[in-house]
Order: sequence, then C-alpha cells, then structure tokens
Amino acid sequence: MHHYQWAKTPPMGWNSWDCYGASVTEDEVKGNAEYMAKYLKPFGWEYVVVDIQWYEPGANSSIYRPFVPLEMDEYSRLMPAVNRFPSAKGGKGFKPLADYIHNLGLKFGIHIMRGIPRQAVHQNTPILGTNVGARDIADTNSICPWNTDMYGVDHRKEGAQAYYDSLFQLYAQWGVDFVKVDDIAASKLYGTHTEEIKMIRKAIDRCGRPMVLSLSPGPAPLDHATLFVENANMWRMTDDFWDRWELLYDMFERCYKWCKLVGPGHWPDADMLPLGHIGIRSVDGGGTDRMTRFTKDEQRTMMTLWIIFRSPLMFGGELRDNDEWTLSLLTNEEVLHVHQNGYGARQVYRENDHVVWTSQDAEGNQFVAMFNISEKRSVVSVSLKDLGCMEPMKARDLWAKEDLGLVKHQLAFELGPHQSILVKLSPAVGKGL
Amino acid sequence: MHHYQWAKTPPMGWNSWDCYGASVTEDEVKGNAEYMAKYLKPFGWEYVVVDIQWYEPGANSSIYRPFVPLEMDEYSRLMPAVNRFPSAKGGKGFKPLADYIHNLGLKFGIHIMRGIPRQAVHQNTPILGTNVGARDIADTNSICPWNTDMYGVDHRKEGAQAYYDSLFQLYAQWGVDFVKVDDIAASKLYGTHTEEIKMIRKAIDRCGRPMVLSLSPGPAPLDHATLFVENANMWRMTDDFWDRWELLYDMFERCYKWCKLVGPGHWPDADMLPLGHIGIRSVDGGGTDRMTRFTKDEQRTMMTLWIIFRSPLMFGGELRDNDEWTLSLLTNEEVLHVHQNGYGARQVYRENDHVVWTSQDAEGNQFVAMFNISEKRSVVSVSLKDLGCMEPMKARDLWAKEDLGLVKHQLAFELGPHQSILVKLSPAVGKGL
Amino acid sequence: MHHYQWAKTPPMGWNSWDCYGASVTEDEVKGNAEYMAKYLKPFGWEYVVVDIQWYEPGANSSIYRPFVPLEMDEYSRLMPAVNRFPSAKGGKGFKPLADYIHNLGLKFGIHIMRGIPRQAVHQNTPILGTNVGARDIADTNSICPWNTDMYGVDHRKEGAQAYYDSLFQLYAQWGVDFVKVDDIAASKLYGTHTEEIKMIRKAIDRCGRPMVLSLSPGPAPLDHATLFVENANMWRMTDDFWDRWELLYDMFERCYKWCKLVGPGHWPDADMLPLGHIGIRSVDGGGTDRMTRFTKDEQRTMMTLWIIFRSPLMFGGELRDNDEWTLSLLTNEEVLHVHQNGYGARQVYRENDHVVWTSQDAEGNQFVAMFNISEKRSVVSVSLKDLGCMEPMKARDLWAKEDLGLVKHQLAFELGPHQSILVKLSPAVGKGL
Amino acid sequence: MHHYQWAKTPPMGWNSWDCYGASVTEDEVKGNAEYMAKYLKPFGWEYVVVDIQWYEPGANSSIYRPFVPLEMDEYSRLMPAVNRFPSAKGGKGFKPLADYIHNLGLKFGIHIMRGIPRQAVHQNTPILGTNVGARDIADTNSICPWNTDMYGVDHRKEGAQAYYDSLFQLYAQWGVDFVKVDDIAASKLYGTHTEEIKMIRKAIDRCGRPMVLSLSPGPAPLDHATLFVENANMWRMTDDFWDRWELLYDMFERCYKWCKLVGPGHWPDADMLPLGHIGIRSVDGGGTDRMTRFTKDEQRTMMTLWIIFRSPLMFGGELRDNDEWTLSLLTNEEVLHVHQNGYGARQVYRENDHVVWTSQDAEGNQFVAMFNISEKRSVVSVSLKDLGCMEPMKARDLWAKEDLGLVKHQLAFELGPHQSILVKLSPAVGKGL
Repeated sequence: MHHYQWAKTPPMGWNSWDCYGASVTEDEVKGNAEYMAKYLKPFGWEYVVVDIQWYEPGANSSIYRPFVPLEMDEYSRLMPAVNRFPSAKGGKGFKPLADYIHNLGLKFGIHIMRGIPRQAVHQNTPILGTNVGARDIADTNSICPWNTDMYGVDHRKEGAQAYYDSLFQLYAQWGVDFVKVDDIAASKLYGTHTEEIKMIRKAIDRCGRPMVLSLSPGPAPLDHATLFVENANMWRMTDDFWDRWELLYDMFERCYKWCKLVGPGHWPDADMLPLGHIGIRSVDGGGTDRMTRFTKDEQRTMMTLWIIFRSPLMFGGELRDNDEWTLSLLTNEEVLHVHQNGYGARQVYRENDHVVWTSQDAEGNQFVAMFNISEKRSVVSVSLKDLGCMEPMKARDLWAKEDLGLVKHQLAFELGPHQSILVKLSPAVGKGL
Repeated sequence: MHHYQWAKTPPMGWNSWDCYGASVTEDEVKGNAEYMAKYLKPFGWEYVVVDIQWYEPGANSSIYRPFVPLEMDEYSRLMPAVNRFPSAKGGKGFKPLADYIHNLGLKFGIHIMRGIPRQAVHQNTPILGTNVGARDIADTNSICPWNTDMYGVDHRKEGAQAYYDSLFQLYAQWGVDFVKVDDIAASKLYGTHTEEIKMIRKAIDRCGRPMVLSLSPGPAPLDHATLFVENANMWRMTDDFWDRWELLYDMFERCYKWCKLVGPGHWPDADMLPLGHIGIRSVDGGGTDRMTRFTKDEQRTMMTLWIIFRSPLMFGGELRDNDEWTLSLLTNEEVLHVHQNGYGARQVYRENDHVVWTSQDAEGNQFVAMFNISEKRSVVSVSLKDLGCMEPMKARDLWAKEDLGLVKHQLAFELGPHQSILVKLSPAVGKGL
Repeated sequence: MHHYQWAKTPPMGWNSWDCYGASVTEDEVKGNAEYMAKYLKPFGWEYVVVDIQWYEPGANSSIYRPFVPLEMDEYSRLMPAVNRFPSAKGGKGFKPLADYIHNLGLKFGIHIMRGIPRQAVHQNTPILGTNVGARDIADTNSICPWNTDMYGVDHRKEGAQAYYDSLFQLYAQWGVDFVKVDDIAASKLYGTHTEEIKMIRKAIDRCGRPMVLSLSPGPAPLDHATLFVENANMWRMTDDFWDRWELLYDMFERCYKWCKLVGPGHWPDADMLPLGHIGIRSVDGGGTDRMTRFTKDEQRTMMTLWIIFRSPLMFGGELRDNDEWTLSLLTNEEVLHVHQNGYGARQVYRENDHVVWTSQDAEGNQFVAMFNISEKRSVVSVSLKDLGCMEPMKARDLWAKEDLGLVKHQLAFELGPHQSILVKLSPAVGKGL
Repeated sequence: MHHYQWAKTPPMGWNSWDCYGASVTEDEVKGNAEYMAKYLKPFGWEYVVVDIQWYEPGANSSIYRPFVPLEMDEYSRLMPAVNRFPSAKGGKGFKPLADYIHNLGLKFGIHIMRGIPRQAVHQNTPILGTNVGARDIADTNSICPWNTDMYGVDHRKEGAQAYYDSLFQLYAQWGVDFVKVDDIAASKLYGTHTEEIKMIRKAIDRCGRPMVLSLSPGPAPLDHATLFVENANMWRMTDDFWDRWELLYDMFERCYKWCKLVGPGHWPDADMLPLGHIGIRSVDGGGTDRMTRFTKDEQRTMMTLWIIFRSPLMFGGELRDNDEWTLSLLTNEEVLHVHQNGYGARQVYRENDHVVWTSQDAEGNQFVAMFNISEKRSVVSVSLKDLGCMEPMKARDLWAKEDLGLVKHQLAFELGPHQSILVKLSPAVGKGL
C-alpha cells in the first residue's frame, strides 16, 4: 500500500472544528498555523486543517444552514467562500493559503463532504473531462442525514470516478496535504460508503500528490476493518468526541476493539483533542465558549490513551489561547516518543475500571499506561510478568520526567478517579544499578 | 372519526399504475373511466385514480427520471403536466378532468408523494398564506429512497401544516375524492412518517371536501396500527403487489396479521389487482406488456382473499382490454356482496397450506373461503363447529352461483394447487328442506 | 370464540407476586381471599391468583433458586409444595384451596411457566396417556432466560399436545378458573412462543372448565396481535410493572398502541397494580418491604388509565394491610362503572405530555380522562368537538363524585405534575338545565 | 502472548467430523493417525482431532440424541465412552489414545462443548478442588441452541474458573495438544461468549502443557477481533463448511474481511476441508456417504484460498480412502510452502468475480492466487504494478510445478468457472535470463 508512506507515524496537527465549527476564517487559520510553527513544530506537529463548509459564505457557527447556495466552480466543485478566505479570490482556491502554510514548514489539510453538491445536481452542471452532468452521477438514494450540501455519487455511473478525479486534481493544484472526508465511514442512514471510499482512494493515487486520507465520522464498523486499513490513513473509531467524561470513558473500549489494526500508515482515530479554548463559535458537544471542561487529570488521561494507542493527535482548541498547562500537554518529548515510536500496543487487563495498556519500542523499552477510570481512588497495579518482562526494569514517569527506581515484580500506583500514569520501563541489566 | 363516513365499505376502483406506470395520459384516464361507468359502476366500482408523477412532463414508463424539473405553481405545489393532461392548461389543474369523471357518476383520485418538491426547496419558493419559503419547512433528513421528487416536511417548523393545508385546499378546488399518499406508511429509510400522516389528516379535515385517504407503500408496521386506523381510510399491508404467486402466497399471512384492525372506514389494503392487460408502460414487477401472469385459479384465489378479508379493490389493468373472464371477476354480485356486507373476517385455521377464512353478514349468512395454497391437489375441509355454526346450513358456491345442498357437519372440497372456493352458508331452519 | 364468554369484562382480582414474590403460602392466600370476599367482592373483584413457583418448597423471595428439585407428580406435572400449601397433601393439589375460595364466592387462579420441568426431561418421566416420556417432547432449544424450572415443549413432537392436555385436565379437577402462563408472550430469547400458545388454547378448550387465559410477560409484540386476540383473554403490554413513575409514564404509549385491540373477552393487560403494602418478600422492582412508592396523584393516574383503557385490574399488595385511601381506589363504583361498561376507548390527543382519553357507555354517557404527565403544573383542556360531542353536556368528577355543571365548549382543569381527572359527560338535553 | 508459540504456522491435521459426525471410534481414529504418520507427516500434517460427543455412548451419526445420559467422572467432567474408546476403560480417559498418537510422531486433539454437563448441574455433582457443586456455577441463561449436553458456566460464580482449571488439568494429564471448543465463538442465541473464552485461556495457561486453542462455530464477529486474536490460536470465520459451491464462494468475502488479523499464533479459520470420502456417518451439509461433491477445479480453488490466506488446514475425509488426486492436494510441497511461509496476504482486487490474492515470503518471492469464481470462462489478469512488483519476475505454476517464464507487465490466465491458479513470482534480476 503505497499511501502508507505518507503517514508512517500517526499524524499530528490542528483542526478548526472544536473552536470555530463551520465558520473558521483565513486569519484564524493563519494565526493558528503561526503558533504551531513557533511552538509545536519542533515536537512533530505539522498539519493545519480547515474543517467543514469553507464553501459556505454564511456559515457562522457549527449549525449548518440547510439548502443554502454554496460557492462552486463551473465543474460542480465547491470553492472557498471568498468573504471568509480572501486569498481565494479570482478562482485561486486554497492555493495561496496552502502556500502560506507550506512556507511556515507545515502541511495543509481540508475537510470535504462525500459526494456532489445538491445544487450542482439540480442545475445539472458539468463534470470536468466528461460529457455527463452532475445529475447523471448523483446517487438517487444517498444523502447525509445531518447536512444538506451534497448527494452521494453512484460508482456505477459513467463519470463518477471522473468527478472524484477532478476534485483531487484541483486539491493537488492547491497543494493540499491532508483530506478529511466526512459522512463516509459511518453514515447514520446507510452504513459505510465503501464504494465512495474506493473511488476517493483511486482519485488520490492518481492525483500525483501525497495526501493523507482521514475518514469520518465514526464509529467506523469493525466489520469493514480491511477496507479502512487498505484505503485510508486514519478513520474514526467514534462519533464526534467532546470534553465529556462519558465519551472519554467509552474510548477505552473502542481502543481495545481496534488495537490489532493499528500500524504504519493506517491509524484508527480517537478524534480531535478538545483541549484549551474551544467552543468559540462551535455549539456542538453541549458547550459554549470555554476552556475545556476536562479536569487536568482527565486531560492527561486522554493524552495518555491517545498516545499509547497511537491515535492521530489533532488539537481542537484555539492554539493562540493556550495556557502553559495546555501547551505542556503537547510538548513533552518523552511522552511523544511513545506516540511516534511505540508499537504493539495492547490492553494488558481491565478489571473494575482499572485499565493497563502497554507498548514497546525498538530499543527494548516498554511503556506502561495505567488508568483509574473508576470513581474512587485506588491502587492500580500490574506485574512485570503480565507485561511480558522477564527481569527487573528501571522505571520512569514520563509526564513528570522523573525516575522511579528499579522495579522487580510489579508496578503499583495509587490513582485518583480519572487519573493515570505513563511509565517507561528500561532494561536494568548492566546499567550498574 | 368523522372521515370513517367516507369509506364505510372498502373502496373499489381503478388505478393507472399497473398498466401505465408513471406515464398515464388524460385520454387513457378518460377511456378507463368511461368503461367503468358503463360496465362496472352498477357493481359498486367508483374511483378512478391517477397514480404517481402526473406532474412530470417527461415520464414515459414506471422508471423515474431523477432530479428533473417538475411542473409547479408559484406556491411550491406540483401541477399536472399539460403535455400529458391538456385540460389542465392555464393553471386549471385537475379540475376539468375531475368534472369529466364526476359527470360519469364516478369519483376522482390522485396520487401524491409525501413532502415538498426538492426544486421548491432549493429555489426557496413561497408557501401559500405564510411568510416562509419551502426551504424553511423542508426536513433536512427526509428523502424518499426510490424517487427524487420531494423532501419531507418537518412538522416542527412554522408553515409546515400551512403547506399541507394549501395542497388539500387546491385538491378540494379541483374536486378530488381520493388521495393516495406515497412514501409514508413504510419508508424504507426511516420507518413510518407518523407526523406527516397527522398533518395530512388535519389538512383533509380542514379542506371542506370528503377525500378518502390511502397510505403507501407497505408493509405498514403493525406497531403503528392505532395511527393507521385513526388517521387513514386504507393503508398498505404489503410492498407493491404484482402477478407473482409468491406475493399472493405471502398475502395470506399479511391478512391474518391485520384482520383484527379491519372495520368501517379503516381498511388494511392488499394493493391493486394486477389483472387483465398490464405492464403496458410499466416495467415494475418483473414483467412487460402482458395479460396477467396469474392463472385463472390464482386470479380467483386472489379475488376471494381480497373479498373475504375486505381489502379495497383497485383494478390495475387497462379496463378497455378486459376479456370476458376478467370482467366476470369484477361483476359477480353474489361475491361482491361478501366484500360489501361481510364482517368479522377471521382465519379459521391454516395447516399444511390449507387455509380457511370465514365472515358473516347481518342477515345470518356465513361466508367461507377455502384455499389450497400448497403445491398439490388435496381435500380442504372445515367443520361447522369450527366455523361456529350450531346447525345444518344450506351451502352455495358463490363464484359458480350454484347451490351445493345441505351441510350437516363439514364442508370439504378437492382443490387443485392455488385453487379456492367461496361458499355461502345460510340457515336451513324452517326452510322446508 | 367461545372463551370470550369467560371474560366479557376485564378481569379484576388479586395476585400474590407484588407482595410475596415466589413464596406465598396457603394462609396468606386465604387471608387475602377473605378480605376480598368481605370488602371488594361487591365491587366486582373476584380472582385470587397464586403466582409463580408454588411447586418450589424452598422459595422464599422473588429470587429463584436455580436448578433445585421441584414437587412433581408421576406424570411430569408440577404439584403444590406441601410445606407451603398444607391442604395439598396426599396428592390433592390445589383442590382444597380452590374449594375454599369458591366457598367465599370467588374464583381461583394459578400461574404456570410454559413448558415441562427440566427435571422431568432429564429423568425422562412419563406423559399421561401416551407412550412417550418428557425427553421426547422437550424442545431442545427452548429455555426461559430468567428461570430454570422448565424446557419448552415442541409442538411437532408426538405427545406434546397430550402433555398440555394432561396439565389442564388436572387444573380442571382442582377447580382452577384462571391461568397466568409465563415466559410465553414475549420471551426475551426467542420472541413469542406462538405454537405453545395455541397448544394451551386447545388444552383449555378441551378440559371442560372455563378458565381465563392470561399471557406473560410483555411487552407482547403487536406483530402477533391476531394471535393474542384470538387465543388469550389477556396478555401483557409491558414487562413487569412496578411503582416507578417512568414505568407509568411509558404505559400511556403502550395503551395508545394497543387500544384498537381491546374488546369483550380479549384485554391487553397493563399488569398488576403495585398499590398498598408490597415488597414483603418480593425484591423485584428495586424496592423492599414498603407502602407503594407512587404518590396519591400517581396512584389515581394509574387507576384512571387502567380504567379508561379497560386493562384487567389485579391488585398486587397485601390486601389486609390496606389503608382507607388504598381501599378507596378499589371501591368507587362510579369509577368502576367506566371500567366495566365503557367501550371504544381512544386517546383524543397527546401534546406536551398532556394526554386526554375518552370512552363511552351504551346509555349515551361519555367518559373523559385527562392527564398531566409532564413535570409542571398546567391547564389540560379538551373541546367537546374533539371528543365528538355535538351539544352541551353535564359533567361529573367521578373520583370526587361531584357534579361540575354544564359544559358548553370545553373541559379544562389545572393539574399538577402526574395528576389526572376522570370526568363523566352526560347529555344535558331535556334535563331542565 | 506466550501461546502464540504453539502455533507459529497455521495448524494442519485431521478431524473426524466430516466423515463420522459425533460417532467416531478409537479404531477409526487410530487408522487415520496411522495413515497420516505414513503419508502426510513429512509434509507438515500433525494433529489428529476427535470431534464432538466422544462422551456419548449412543452417538451414531451427526444427529445428537437430546438429554441422554453422558459418561462423566465424579467431578462433573465428561469422559470418553468406553464402548467407543475401549482404551479409556478404568478411568484412563484419552491417555492411552494420546500416547498411541504421540508414538506415531503426531499430536492429539479433542473437541469440547463450552460449559458444564446439564446432568451434573441437575445432580449437583462436585467441582474438583472446591466446596461448590455444578449447580452453583452453571449460568442460568446459557444453553447451546443445537445440542443439549451442557449449560454455560457463569464467570462471576466462585468455582467457575476452578471448573475449567480442572478440565484442562485432566486434558494435560491425558496429553492433549489441541482443543477445539464449540458453541463459544458465535453462539446463535447469545453472541460471543467472551468470558468463557477468557476462563479457558487462563485454564490452558495454567495447565502446564501447550495446547492449541481452536474456537467454534462461526461466523465469529469481527467486533470481537481483539478478543479472538489475544486468546485463541484459531477461530472460525464461518458456520460449518461443506462441499457446496455457495459456501466456498462466500469464503472469499470472509477471508477478505479477516485478512488483517492473520499472524503467527492467531489464525482465522475457514473450517475443515470436506475432501475425499466424507459423510460416512455424518448427515450434515445435506449429503450422505460420498466422495466430496466439489469438482477438481473447486477442490484446488478451495485449497488455494486456504493456503494463500493461511487458514488452518484440517482434513475432513476418511484418510484411508484417499485416491491419488486427493492425496496430491495434501502433499505438494511447493504449494504448502506458501501456507507455511507466506505472509501479508491481501486481496489485490475483486471485480466481476475475478479475484486475485497475493502474499510473499522472506526470500523475496511473491505468491499470486488468481481465481475465476464467476460462472463463465474468462481471462483473469493482474499487473505487476498492482502486485507491488517493480521489475520483471520469473513465474512458476505451483500446483503444476511448471515454470511459466518471465513476466514483464502482467499475469493473465484463461480460467474456467470456479477454476484458479497459484503462481510463484521470483526476482529475475541477475539470474541470467
């Protein structure tokens, strides 16, 4: 799978949804990109992603205005709304913004909805490089249940693949590095749109530019695991994730179910990190303009799970409003080492809402994430034997960057509710302890 | 329930779908109406129904052309295509055709799709008597999976009821007596559209003209039995019925399941009778232009089941091409007496695909329908005791119009595969036998 | 349907489950019967029903002891545990207890589990009047998911009907008047056990003694409505009902769904009335020994719904511990008139958790039940027109037994949360108002 | 995962089910073992597995006799029926037979049903090493829907793990090397029995002897992929597989869905190979005593799919009746090399029922399986590019053991319906071609 090369480690970046919903503007994107270049790039963060409805001039929150006219070119392709992205004027699309971001040493991503604009279908506008019109390729039974912009595309129709090819050809011209395709991994009406996933895979492979492919929303069904693994770089294990404990609690089970499908180039995705300043113009997730509702313990627990499991890391908050604590979550190089170099992550056990995961790296280190996701303070422990370690190991608390000494039989920590710890175990032999 | 008065017995009529699909013309409607007035009216047949897409100028079979422009007035209401219904020109709608049919002593019916035209929604055309547009009342997650004409209407939106009111006000002006509403009783995507059924019920009650309300398609779920019984005059127990034995075989189970919900004004519907010359421009049901594929035995079996159960009777063939046999199925007054006057129909038993049903009338007669729906010739029998008859009865074969003599203990007939018999039992007491 | 004669009005009685679980004793049954004879019989209450596991010597609560030996005769039939029902000694079964209850002018009922005892199957004990053993008729894939006493009986096996015949022959000898069959209307593992229902119907019809047939548990699926209506006298619309508001709130929807299937001899059942002193040795329903957790408003609301809908009324508490209030709920003859003589009950409307039902009697009275099942005090109203009344009516509050004067246009009452009122409307014409 | 060591390559062996159903005898097992030792062992075949109901003295086909007494020891553990396995007399169990097979240089396997014998539960016999009885640990809602021998075991009960420990302790004493546990991977009543799988895993790990764990029946749900991968060595992707084309046709989809979960120690299982002489005393699969109904093309197609996918290979026929053709399917060392050494198997494409799979080995060879599973003869082709080969390759037909020359761009073969070919591609560089 050629495209695995483009995401050998789980992608890291920023996405506009959690703070700006469907309404982010060019200035805001640039501002966050600049922050990333300055503070996060050294730690591996690189993608700057414009989420949904950049083609909707009137978008002003995370609530979609139904059936309204959208910015579109003469070939049925949606274009950035110039009032929101001034550099797109004159048909230049996202090329100028992508250039700007590339100049910062970062990569540029966009969100699209599966399918073809309904307005194109009803007007029967042309498909580039074909003799057919939008009406000819639209699937007559394929809508998104939560957004009225598009109809699905029927892969059996002549011109269907050509339409997707024309889209990604355009995105390649713009310089897009990452595409998040929505309403495709787990449509709430129709299941997984397997044929459109395959058309998009083919269109990317043909477009001549590497683009990471991310599929939404979830929960993607395991029954289609092969399809996701082979065609996408990341796909959502979950519906939209927000700063609510129940959702974080559920993620442990989701990670367990998907952990055997994690690997270089194909990453089950636990969704964006709703950290820092979010909800600025997004009203989803039951919140308003706020600092994340997660406690500090919960924030670390979330980061620790995403990291040991190797979920992609896409920060959801307004980066420029980060406080020191929030920034510290994103810039701990010892912790991020586990994310970028760990492999073979598995849940060692889960009992009474004590959960232990482990992974390892190529240098013989083993990583242990220990979680108390119950509602009472208690001691969480795990034996070296259950971790598969044969000998005493040196332990280090990675978040605290503190050595914990030699471990002979087991790790055990008293953890508060929702608290966790991430430990690195290194071979003690010959180290003069 | 006031509207029960409008269909005290199960409706009888003709519908254009089985012969002409979505493409019937004014001349064809008139021709069939004239035939009905001449040959069938004396036997109780009265409704002449124009089925789906009379507003689609290019309709030419039973295959819908997706996303094409439809004939519509300035208030988002679909209008007859003048090329197909010339009398509708000048905005007169179906008024002239309805008048024509009324002058024959018959009643006029139309088919509509639930919802509001998608073209109205995307153009945001006005809703009569309101300040809102089509875009404001369309349901953002409500399409028909097999036809692209409409969006559903969201009952929570201001103007939603007003739209339906404006529709039925127009139909009342036209002189419509019967409305078959489609994509509503058993949507294949969303279940039953309960709130749109209620809006339509209310709109009819307000429109000032009696109109029989028929809901399609099926199978309507029994879980919503109360809703159907209270709001509609008839509703489909089945998906589209065609001249295939499997479908007829299945209808026995459907009738069994619904038989306790049959009553004056509310009639579970076994769908149109695909008899005589059908498939002229309809390609549904797996057939082409043909005389019905049902054998004569099967035709009688179908008629007998519809009649004892009291399904509405809507003939589906081109009436003018009826042969003598076909006409005989529609004009046996002794058989039709059971349909119009029988009550309390129930399945006495079903064993090894021998099926016996019974009903009675107010004069003390009892009707017995005996079916052999197995694949081998055999004797089907039923005891008077199981029929609830206490004494010997006189028997008469209603299709043959022949007396069968006195029955003391049981009825028993040798029936071929798919064959049936309809018997009337009358009290023998004091009749000088 | 012959058996409709045995329950022309909805049955009224007492059942041991809500107070004693699986463990009621002969003395307790007699004590409640005596109370009923003295205080309730004049109001129509008549059935005294011994609920589950009277054949289990060690039963002491509502928790079943799995796999324990049961009292059984030589023909694989369960017998009363003599330690709990001393009069059953010497193989006399429930005959002495039934006689005792009959002498009080009441009727006697028992509960049974569908099927044949597992211990009979593993021991292969005989089936009366056959050459087969229990092992030959047991269904190899048919258990009850919540009780280990029985295997289902396979109707295709020779001897299956004979077994059920032998059971009801025994119950007829005992003098049983009412049988509640459990694990049959809505098995949580297998759906509805349609064939065992039919075998039981046949066995009762053959046994020579009228017995009301009650089917449990629910929710019985509407898809089998015909089966229930034709074979049983009552069947549960709901899983076990307890004194929790959520369950009462849900019952409104259940009654709406089933209201078209209510009629003489066949009664959808809202389950026992958990009133007065309950939970004495029953720990189901999340409670312990207590007076009902329903408020007085909720108790009246429950009674009013059961009464207008015409659910069977089976009191669940220890009758001898009734206080005056509880007794008053069971002995209001004006209210009970609605239960015994109302017909055509229907929900007039439900909006914002204001619910109005109506029914009528043969003398031209109309009954109106108005409920506020929301969480805030508000005015609930209904117009005479929506009730189908053409003229002014005299109104009377039936619970309070107070005249409310003449109603010209509408009824309207301010009702607290969970409160209701039951009104009788009588024609005012010629009454000199 | 320690137990991965015990099945580093997919297990190969013989199983008694397809020929003898539930009724195989010691002599038959020995005879097949001897054949294997002589003809198949050199090719890697090693397991000899006694399938279901070796504890049922009266078993004589593949139809289970319900509720009959089973051979059992004093600790609720089933024992071989001595009339069928004479060497088991005197409580020796399968020890003598296992010894015999080990002496042939082979390994010995048995089948068990999940759970504890129902007869033990009803008699409440003891659990070894505990104070509890069978009645205390049986799950009150857990049967097998197609066999009446056992109840499930409730992991929450004290003694539950001890029971499974006692079972595997006994099997270790006998010398069992392979256990196929049935009614556990995809119960038709309850889904997957996750907790009993974990108890069995633990019991094996504790028993002190390596035993391959095989889970049945299928289709195992992908939603539990992690559980299967972590706890079992093989698990069924399918319900019972027989010699019917439809089942083989379906297997292509099953293999596609599971292919990302294949790996050393954990093997999704396509079920036994119904080849050669089968149905001798088994009547499942709709057949009788016969040579396999698969055509030779279908037999090769089946073998080729199992081999490229790396399903376990368990031969189902009476080995001693193998003809030369059948034997040739099991003894082609070039083909078996793909099974034992291939990795990374994936479906390259599937279009119009042309299917191509590929895998590779560590020496740089690539294997290509090309299938025509349509009903018409046609050319099936695949490009080197789609196979991921960058350069010309040398091709060899592995079944025919014939070189096919140099391939520059694509492989293309004309294949009849149900026909296939298995090709090895080797780097041509520097080989002097």
